[in-house]
Amino acid sequence: MANAYDTQAPVRFTGRLLLLGYGCIGRGVLPLLLRHVDMVPGQITILAAAEVRDDSRLALGVPLRVATLTRDNYQDILAEELGPGDFLLNLSINVSSLDLIAWCQEHGVLYLDACIEPWAGVYTDPKLPPSERSNYMLRELAHGLRLPGVRPTAVLTHGVNPGLVSHFVKRALLDIAAAVLPEGEWQEPHDRAGWAALAQRLKIRTIHIAERDTQVPVVPKQPGEFVNTWSVDAFAAEGRQPAELGWGSHERHWPADAHRHGYGCDATIYLDRPGMAVRVRSWTPREGAYHGFLVTHGEAITITNFLTVKEGEHVVYRPTVHYAYHPCDAAVLSQHELEGKGWQLQARRRALGPNDIAGGMDELGVLLGGHARNAYWFGSRLTIEEARTLCPSNNATSLQTAAGVLGGVVWAMRHPQAGIVDPDDMDWREVLAVASPYLGELIGEFTDWNPLQGRGALFPEDLDREDPWQFKNVRV
Amino acid sequence: MANAYDTQAPVRFTGRLLLLGYGCIGRGVLPLLLRHVDMVPGQITILAAAEVRDDSRLALGVPLRVATLTRDNYQDILAEELGPGDFLLNLSINVSSLDLIAWCQEHGVLYLDACIEPWAGVYTDPKLPPSERSNYMLRELAHGLRLPGVRPTAVLTHGVNPGLVSHFVKRALLDIAAAVLPEGEWQEPHDRAGWAALAQRLKIRTIHIAERDTQVPVVPKQPGEFVNTWSVDAFAAEGRQPAELGWGSHERHWPADAHRHGYGCDATIYLDRPGMAVRVRSWTPREGAYHGFLVTHGEAITITNFLTVKEGEHVVYRPTVHYAYHPCDAAVLSQHELEGKGWQLQARRRALGPNDIAGGMDELGVLLGGHARNAYWFGSRLTIEEARTLCPSNNATSLQTAAGVLGGVVWAMRHPQAGIVDPDDMDWREVLAVASPYLGELIGEFTDWNPLQGRGALFPEDLDREDPWQFKNVRV
Repeated sequence: MANAYDTQAPVRFTGRLLLLGYGCIGRGVLPLLLRHVDMVPGQITILAAAEVRDDSRLALGVPLRVATLTRDNYQDILAEELGPGDFLLNLSINVSSLDLIAWCQEHGVLYLDACIEPWAGVYTDPKLPPSERSNYMLRELAHGLRLPGVRPTAVLTHGVNPGLVSHFVKRALLDIAAAVLPEGEWQEPHDRAGWAALAQRLKIRTIHIAERDTQVPVVPKQPGEFVNTWSVDAFAAEGRQPAELGWGSHERHWPADAHRHGYGCDATIYLDRPGMAVRVRSWTPREGAYHGFLVTHGEAITITNFLTVKEGEHVVYRPTVHYAYHPCDAAVLSQHELEGKGWQLQARRRALGPNDIAGGMDELGVLLGGHARNAYWFGSRLTIEEARTLCPSNNATSLQTAAGVLGGVVWAMRHPQAGIVDPDDMDWREVLAVASPYLGELIGEFTDWNPLQGRGALFPEDLDREDPWQFKNVRV
Repeated sequence: MANAYDTQAPVRFTGRLLLLGYGCIGRGVLPLLLRHVDMVPGQITILAAAEVRDDSRLALGVPLRVATLTRDNYQDILAEELGPGDFLLNLSINVSSLDLIAWCQEHGVLYLDACIEPWAGVYTDPKLPPSERSNYMLRELAHGLRLPGVRPTAVLTHGVNPGLVSHFVKRALLDIAAAVLPEGEWQEPHDRAGWAALAQRLKIRTIHIAERDTQVPVVPKQPGEFVNTWSVDAFAAEGRQPAELGWGSHERHWPADAHRHGYGCDATIYLDRPGMAVRVRSWTPREGAYHGFLVTHGEAITITNFLTVKEGEHVVYRPTVHYAYHPCDAAVLSQHELEGKGWQLQARRRALGPNDIAGGMDELGVLLGGHARNAYWFGSRLTIEEARTLCPSNNATSLQTAAGVLGGVVWAMRHPQAGIVDPDDMDWREVLAVASPYLGELIGEFTDWNPLQGRGALFPEDLDREDPWQFKNVRV
């Protein structure tokens, strides 16, 4: 992964940075910011809903202000902490990203989040139709916040996924091209249309964000407890949003529970059920075949949209894109329990810190299927031991995300007038150069696996044997 | 549970007893036999496929013969070990119960098993149609082995489930009757027709064998490993058989993947998929609502058949009966992994012995729904600590099963000329009197839970709101 950016000096930042939210990702990213951005702890303020006991923050000398942002107070509080040229790093949940972005665009403040969040309660408000609980709508609204003229950079959804996986997709497309296209008859694209044309030329049908987290807690999950390697509240919230996926132009079996939104870019569809209740077949190099959850994520929308080829208004090429998430085993059990109890979240919730984990790794990448070499996975393999060594406030999952946040923050500081951008709009090499040192092994591997393997042996199954990469075959 | 049998002397047995198979249940039941049957260790021989290091057997002085029974050798080996008046206690897997029963019926040998097993490979032979991999067919064939005249007792499928749960159902019917019928206007039935008429009068629509095993291993499940609280091979085999359920006369939504067998008693149907892939909603008192697996089990057939009311050939009443199994968490994860790998059983398998378990219990009973008090659960709650105290070679799961085996063996010895019987044909009080000391707490509890609770809140669901106890509502 050596490239021109590796040797760049740390970016210099002279403004104030407000770190909103101090959960596992906030704690994970704080030391990285001070390592890779030329700034001092006194430039940073943490704003969190509650006091957090955290030795590394105290050692760094970063102040923490306790306040809960609400619809009523957010403008006042932001105005106290931020002004033109400053940075709002939003790693909170239950605070409206849209309101924050609009404020930052108006006030000349740089912005980055790892997820476009609504105010509390929206994801699980049964009075709202599913489309209004979707990430699709949140992204449409975020893009609708664009104002005329040169505006400060606001990076949407830039952790690891969503975030770095958009860059993994580009790297994977280049690797596949190098393997299947004649030398000299292709080159690295330099714009969106070029990337989409390359994906079309390679016949990429399906892109899974294929993740297998094998981290194991020291103390096993107890009955009535939700255990995860990152925020339980955030995972349980997104897991109960509608399942969303980019709907490829090759798909010929419309799911019975699927709907189009009827507005906006139309890249994705949603299913009339919680993502945590939709299982899909996928593959990672170390795990092999597995069942993951089709939890909605921003990357399913941005990657799909980015790689779409249109002739006029007509879509002539589009891949199917979605998450295939195998969280840590304790979270699989927590999900099973949660679903069994009618989606009423467990009273006890435990996000595993770096020292609560006995072993395991997070294997997180993108699987591109349908091309001449069948399928190719590219991604990160980071063990808990490595994560602790690289940055002690992290487990493997939080460090992958923190690496994405770091990469995005540095990019935003280097490109402070880019306006509102998706991860896919950024230079993949530039971002990965910053993030890669924290991603463990970066691996690319071709595979013969497809979702028809071993199917229909013991019992008849309704399959499309003509095209392995139909979503109908992928869905469990 | 006090009754006339509590104070009975141990049954006297003077013949030889061949214990075929020495897995977790064989090891669990051996000391119980010597406690509750008036016999000496020298009357027992263990026949197992491999030498088993087992201090308790050695201390008891019970010999073990190593041999694998096959189609070719079973008659010779049985003839060496057994003759008229002896007992074949079959706790093996991959040996044909049908061939053993036929041999015992011919040779005057008593018999009991905890599952009607075929020779190895049948359950997962893709060349066999699903009906020929069903428990339904095995039971039909077993009943077809009846010979004319007085014949030795052969108890089919008598562990805890199948086995004791048939007796729990009778106890539950009496408890419900006492709660909802006017005093003096009903009495305990004395034959099959009477029990079926009582179930019909009480309007029992659905009977779940509702089990939640919360036992936790000391060493967590590792990737590529199947962990269970009893035989992994046996669970993985039955879990890949077709899902089977008694199909109640109230059901009005025929499952798209369901089939009738087209022969025999017709009490049950099967689904065109492995039981481990079919999840159902159920409830136990301590767990509350949960999702379990509809794994095929003999009791789904015998209870359904036993409680059917016919007028001529026409079924006028029948409950829906099936298993709703929440195995221990490590087994839930093992199943998730197994399914993700296309039902190819993990190379590493671990059945947890009594000292491999850090805590938890097995809560196993029957849930009868649809009557005037909604639903009632009756069953056993046995913790790992209690199990170890009661009989150190057991965990909670194996002791519940061993208690059922013990109760069935004692019953068979007391009634040696009953021919081939289902658990439902036996006196429930007599059997439970023997088994109960090993079942921990026996609990009965009414509940307001039904499978419509909390449904359709976040997303529309296709439900039958008129009748909660439709299988359509129960299935996930």
